[in-house]
Amino acid sequence: MKRAIVLFGHGARDPEWAIPFVNVQTRLRQARPTMEIELAFLEFMQPNLATAVSALATRGASDLTIVPLFLAQGGHLKHDLPRIVERIRAVHPALTIDVTSPIGDVDAVLDAITHWILSATKP
Amino acid sequence: MKRAIVLFGHGARDPEWAIPFVNVQTRLRQARPTMEIELAFLEFMQPNLATAVSALATRGASDLTIVPLFLAQGGHLKHDLPRIVERIRAVHPALTIDVTSPIGDVDAVLDAITHWILSATKP
Repeated sequence: MKRAIVLFGHGARDPEWAIPFVNVQTRLRQARPTMEIELAFLEFMQPNLATAVSALATRGASDLTIVPLFLAQGGHLKHDLPRIVERIRAVHPALTIDVTSPIGDVDAVLDAITHWILSATKP
Repeated sequence: MKRAIVLFGHGARDPEWAIPFVNVQTRLRQARPTMEIELAFLEFMQPNLATAVSALATRGASDLTIVPLFLAQGGHLKHDLPRIVERIRAVHPALTIDVTSPIGDVDAVLDAITHWILSATKP
């Protein structure tokens, strides 16, 4: 079994928008140097999720975790992402694909955001 | 001087999208029970930033920090937000308004995201 992670972001027209996503990818690659950690985007940026997953499957990935780097759950995560994953599963039936919660549902992430705001503002 | 914080999010059609933003607001209010901490949105949700700031000014706020709860800097933060803040400053010349970095530029937030992904996925 060969595991891989895909960090799934919204995407934007401005290339600099991707910087924080690349920074998370870099941190994960440092922590797991032998695991494939790729980025994929819903729109505006490449690759899209289907392309990223196909490339990983071609390179031998068998067990994939998609991490939505979204702050919150709206239509993109409730409707668009499940449809995309369903199509990917139809194309790659041998692949195990999990999707995590979005980062805005994670207490430790909200705590880090809160602590930073407290440190960046005067009481 | 009466300080206040406005948490500025993108907004979405789905009301549940706001939950993580409300959760950060709740944490901040617990940490600073006497400070006004309000939410405002770019689109789809109410109030918008101008409305939120006017309400705070009416209640006596004199020193405002806008915190963009965006993961990354694209057109919304580089172009839309400065234009909105410029118009707000014209309407409220006595108000001191600062805008912080977006949370995706904050190392501690990216570290928390990374640690959570490492804990939520198998090596």
